Amino acid sequence: MHAYRSHTCAQLNKDHVGQAVRLSGWVHRVRDHGGVLFIDLRDHYGITQVLADSDSPAFAEIEKVRAEWVVCIDGVVKGRDASLVNPKLATGEIEVYAKGLTVLGASEELPMPVFGEVDYPEETRLTYRFLDLRREKLHNNMMLRSNVVRSLRNRMWDQGFNEFQTPIITASSPEGARDFLVPSRLHPGKFYALPQAPQQFKQLIMVAGFDRYFQIAPCFRDEDPRADRSPTDFYQLDVEMSFVEQEDVFAAVQPVIQGMFEEFGKGKTVYADWPRIAYRDSLLWYGSDKPDLRNPIKMQIVSEHFRGSGFAVFAKLLENEGTQIRAIPAPTGGSRKFCDRMNAFAQKEGLPGMGYIFWRKGEDGAMEAAGPLAKNIGPERTEAIRLQLGLGEGDAAFFLGGKPEAFESFAGRARNEIGRELGLTEQDCFRFAWIVDFPMYEKTDEGKIDFSHNPFSMPQGGMEALMGDPLEVYAYQYDLACNGYELISGGIRNHKPEIMYRAFELAGYPNSEVDKRFGGMVKAFKYGAPPHGGCAMGIDRAVMLLADEANIREVIMFPMNQRAEDLLMGAPSEPMNEQLRELRLRVVPKE
Amino acid sequence: MHAYRSHTCAQLNKDHVGQAVRLSGWVHRVRDHGGVLFIDLRDHYGITQVLADSDSPAFAEIEKVRAEWVVCIDGVVKGRDASLVNPKLATGEIEVYAKGLTVLGASEELPMPVFGEVDYPEETRLTYRFLDLRREKLHNNMMLRSNVVRSLRNRMWDQGFNEFQTPIITASSPEGARDFLVPSRLHPGKFYALPQAPQQFKQLIMVAGFDRYFQIAPCFRDEDPRADRSPTDFYQLDVEMSFVEQEDVFAAVQPVIQGMFEEFGKGKTVYADWPRIAYRDSLLWYGSDKPDLRNPIKMQIVSEHFRGSGFAVFAKLLENEGTQIRAIPAPTGGSRKFCDRMNAFAQKEGLPGMGYIFWRKGEDGAMEAAGPLAKNIGPERTEAIRLQLGLGEGDAAFFLGGKPEAFESFAGRARNEIGRELGLTEQDCFRFAWIVDFPMYEKTDEGKIDFSHNPFSMPQGGMEALMGDPLEVYAYQYDLACNGYELISGGIRNHKPEIMYRAFELAGYPNSEVDKRFGGMVKAFKYGAPPHGGCAMGIDRAVMLLADEANIREVIMFPMNQRAEDLLMGAPSEPMNEQLRELRLRVVPKE
Repeated sequence: MHAYRSHTCAQLNKDHVGQAVRLSGWVHRVRDHGGVLFIDLRDHYGITQVLADSDSPAFAEIEKVRAEWVVCIDGVVKGRDASLVNPKLATGEIEVYAKGLTVLGASEELPMPVFGEVDYPEETRLTYRFLDLRREKLHNNMMLRSNVVRSLRNRMWDQGFNEFQTPIITASSPEGARDFLVPSRLHPGKFYALPQAPQQFKQLIMVAGFDRYFQIAPCFRDEDPRADRSPTDFYQLDVEMSFVEQEDVFAAVQPVIQGMFEEFGKGKTVYADWPRIAYRDSLLWYGSDKPDLRNPIKMQIVSEHFRGSGFAVFAKLLENEGTQIRAIPAPTGGSRKFCDRMNAFAQKEGLPGMGYIFWRKGEDGAMEAAGPLAKNIGPERTEAIRLQLGLGEGDAAFFLGGKPEAFESFAGRARNEIGRELGLTEQDCFRFAWIVDFPMYEKTDEGKIDFSHNPFSMPQGGMEALMGDPLEVYAYQYDLACNGYELISGGIRNHKPEIMYRAFELAGYPNSEVDKRFGGMVKAFKYGAPPHGGCAMGIDRAVMLLADEANIREVIMFPMNQRAEDLLMGAPSEPMNEQLRELRLRVVPKE
Repeated sequence: MHAYRSHTCAQLNKDHVGQAVRLSGWVHRVRDHGGVLFIDLRDHYGITQVLADSDSPAFAEIEKVRAEWVVCIDGVVKGRDASLVNPKLATGEIEVYAKGLTVLGASEELPMPVFGEVDYPEETRLTYRFLDLRREKLHNNMMLRSNVVRSLRNRMWDQGFNEFQTPIITASSPEGARDFLVPSRLHPGKFYALPQAPQQFKQLIMVAGFDRYFQIAPCFRDEDPRADRSPTDFYQLDVEMSFVEQEDVFAAVQPVIQGMFEEFGKGKTVYADWPRIAYRDSLLWYGSDKPDLRNPIKMQIVSEHFRGSGFAVFAKLLENEGTQIRAIPAPTGGSRKFCDRMNAFAQKEGLPGMGYIFWRKGEDGAMEAAGPLAKNIGPERTEAIRLQLGLGEGDAAFFLGGKPEAFESFAGRARNEIGRELGLTEQDCFRFAWIVDFPMYEKTDEGKIDFSHNPFSMPQGGMEALMGDPLEVYAYQYDLACNGYELISGGIRNHKPEIMYRAFELAGYPNSEVDKRFGGMVKAFKYGAPPHGGCAMGIDRAVMLLADEANIREVIMFPMNQRAEDLLMGAPSEPMNEQLRELRLRVVPKE
C-alpha cells in the first residue's frame, strides 16, 4: 500500500465497503459521541468521516489529535445506515473505521479556526494565509481562478493565438502609473523597471511578424492600494493581433470571454448580443462609460420640454451654453413615496434634489401626472415628456439639469439605484457591451489639450483627422463593459511613426520626447510595421466577477495587505548593508 | 473583402486558381526578371509569390517597394506551370498576379537583412531584435518555445495538477544566488525582493491544502551572465505535490517530460527507461552528476590490480588514504594512434597524461596487450583488468588515479571525448536518468560542515539520521539528467520543524537564523504540514535542448545581452530625481 494513501478523501463510496484503505489529510473536526470518536478527515478533494470506538487499536492515538493536525489513517470502509447517509458529501454513504493512525504533521494551537469559516480580522487572515486558504470558500476561489486561467489559455489557443513571455526586468514603460524600479548591480546608479503592462513588447511582437499574441501577463504598478486593486503585481490577459480592424478584435475576443462566463458563471445567463455603444451615448444613456446593461433604464435628453417653461430653475439654466436637461425614466416608480426616497438619495449624494413627475390613477379613474414639476410646466409639456419617454400610469421620471459633465456621474448612480430599488435590474446574468469611439483628446482644467485615454491608439481618420480640431478626433479605442465593470480595454494601435509624432505633438510632446519615452517601439515602426491592435483583460477583476467577491484579496493566493505588506513572508524589509553597497545605494534618512 | 487579407500567405493552392484575393505581409525579397517583378510576400504563416508585369496597374507601385515593407496586395491566383511548382512551399503550386498594392508600413534602409539569415553581430541583432525575430530560425524557435510551454501545461493538467500564480514582488528568499531588490515607496528604506524561485510559496501552497501545484514561474537571480543563463529573469516549470514519496514525483513527472520530448524532439528516440542512479555511482561510473547516457562507457574501480604492482606511480599513489585507480573502458579504441590522441587530450586539459592498455592482434595471430602500463604490471594483472572490463581485441582502457574528487570531473570529460571520438555515443536520441541519494552535507575546504545542495530536503532516516555523522546522511533529493544536462532538480521536503531546525543546526545555523531566513515557511510547518515534495525544470534549458541551441538568447523573445542590458528598450537607465526622492534613495558616487 502507498505510504500515505490508497484513496483521496473524496473517493470512497459504498462499492468500497469492506476494503482496507489508507487516507491522509487534515483533521477538519473531532467529535466525541459517547465513547465513539469521529474525525472529519479533509484533503484537497473532499471529506471522509473516520470513526473509532474503544475496541479500535487506534483509539488512544485518535483521542490525542486536534483540529488541523495532518494524520494518516489505516482503516476499513463501512457502509452507513440509510438514515445516516449524508447526500451532501461525495463520501456520504460510507465511513472509515480506524485501526491505525500516524501523525504526519501536528499543529500548535490555532490562531484562527479553519472549520466553520468564522469571520476573522484581515490582519490575522493574511498573517496565517496558509490556514485561511484551507477554508472552503478561499480554497474554491483559488481553484476557480486556476480553472479560469486554464480555460482562457485554451480558448485563446483555439482562436489561433500563441502565448509568448515578455521581459519582467526591463525598461520603464510610462503608462500613467508609477513604475516599480529595480536597481542594477552590474550598472550601479542605473535602474530597471517592472512593466506596467507588456504594451510595447506586444506591439514589438507584431512588428516582429508574429500574427496573434497573448499572454497571461504579470503587470506591476506602484499605486496606492484600493480594495479592488493589488498594490504590487496583478495579472492580465494580454492580447494583440496584426492586420486587423476593431471588429476583428471583437470577433476574436468575444468567444473567449463569453465561453469563460458560460463555463464558470454558475448558470447565470450570458447574453451573446454585445452591442457597440459610442462613448458619448454611453454617458448620455447610462451616465457611465462602463454601463450596467442588466438595468433597462436609458436616459434621454428632454431639454426642449423645459426651455421657456414655467419651471424657472431649468428654464434659466438652459439659457447657459452647454447645458441640458436629462430624464431618468423609472417604470413602475409612480408613487410619491418612491419619488421622495430617490429625492433623498440625491440629497445624500450632495445634490439639492431631483425633480420628478409621476403618473397615477386620478380620482376620476383617468391617469394624471403628479409632482411639483408637472404643476410648473403644465399638462401639455408634461404629456409630451411622458410620450417621449414611453411611460404610463404607475411610472415616474426624474430630471437632472446643468452641464452634462457635472451631473452625468450622479445620473449614472441614480440610474443604478432606481433600477435596483424597483427591481428592474435583471438578476443572475451577465450583459456586455463594447464601448467605442472614445475621444482621442480632452481639454484639461488648465485648457491644455491632452490625451484622454491611450496615446498609442490610432486616430479615426488617420493623419487627416489630426490636422483639424483635436477635440473632434475619435480614437480606435474600446472597452468591454460587463455588469457595470470595465472588463477589457484596448485599441487599434497607431503603427505609423509620422502619425504618432503628430498625435503627440497635438498633446504638447515634441518628437524628441516621444523618442525618449517610447524609443524602442517607435524605432521598430520605422522598419515595416503592420497595422495591429489588441486589448487586455484584468484576470483578478474577471475572477472577482465570477466569484461574486468585492475584495481582490479573496481571489489572489498570497496578496499584500492594503499597506502593500506581505505579513506572512515579511515584505518589504530592511536590506543588508552589503546589498546596498553592491548597488551603490544609500537610504536617505527621514527628514 | 476584409480590409487587409482574404487569406494568409500560407493558404493559397491550386484550388484557388482564378480567385480574386487580398494578401498582406512583409516583402521578403523582390526580384526583377526582365520586366516582370516578383515579390516573395511573407507573413507569420508562410510565403506566397506575387508577380506583376508592365500590364498590371500595380506595376509602378510595386517597383517602389523594398525588402521588409509591409504591403497589402490585391490580385488573382494563377496556377504555376508544372516546371515552376515549388514543392518546398505550401503555396508552391500558385502565384498571385498583382492588380493593386497598398503600402501599410514602409521601411527605412535595413541595419541587417532578414532574407538569407546572414550572420550578424549580436549587438546589432539585439538592438534590432524585431528584425532578427523575423528570420525563420528565430521565429521557429519562438514558436517552438510557445508550443512547448503549452504542451507542458496541458500535460501537467492531465496529471491532475493545478496552476497557481505566486507573488513576484515579495520577500527575499535566500537560495544561494543574489536577490534583485525592489525599493518600496510606501515604506521608504525597505525593499521587496523578486523571487529566485517560488520555493517557499509552493511549499506554503501544500501546507494550505492544495494537493498538486505547478506553475510556469518567472524566476529572478542577479547572477553574472553566462551563455546558458539569462542575467535577469528566466522561467521554470515549478512542481509540488503533497502526500508523496520520491517515486510518486518521478511517476508524475516522467510522462510530462517524456511526452514533451516525444512531441518536439524532431523524431529523435526518447527512451522510456529512466534508471535511478545514486549520486556517488554517477560520479564513479560517469564522472558527472549529470551523465550523458547516450555514451555507453561506464567507468570502474580497478585499484586492486595496481596495488603493489610494477607500475610504481599507481602502486605508490594507492598507499595514500582515499585514493583509487579507475578505468575508462574504450571499446574499439584499440590502436596506439587513438590512445596517444586521448593521452594528448589529457595533457591539453592539464594532466600529466592518461595511462592506457590496448588489445590488438599479435604477430602470432593471438590477442596481445600493448602499451607501457601492460608491460609494467605484467600479463596476469593485465588480463585480470581486461576480464573485469569485459574488453577484447581491438579495445582499449584508460586509467586515472588519485583522490576521486581530484580527477572525477576530468574522467567525465575524457569519457565524453572517448565516446564521441569512437562514435560510441548514440546519436538522435534523448536518454534520461534520475540521480538520487545526494549527500545532505559536505565538508567545506575549511573543514566546516555545510549543506551540499538543498537545505529544504528531508534527510533520509529523518531525525535519527541527523544524530549520527552528518557526512553519512543522504537527502531525498534528485536531479533528472538528460544527455549530459541537468534538466530537473527536486526533493522531498523537510516538513517537520524540529527536523529542519536540527538540519540547520548541523550546518551551523541557530534556530533564530532559520526563523529569520525562512520564517513564513517554518511557521506554517507548525500548523499541520503534510509530507510533500516536488521539482523544477528550466524551461529555457529544455527548449535549448529541443532546438539544439547553445545560447539562451536564441530561445528568449527579448533577451538581455551579456552585460544584462536591453539594447532595444534601453535598460537599465538613469532614474528621474523625482523617483529617487519618492523612494528616499541616493546613488553613491563611484569612488
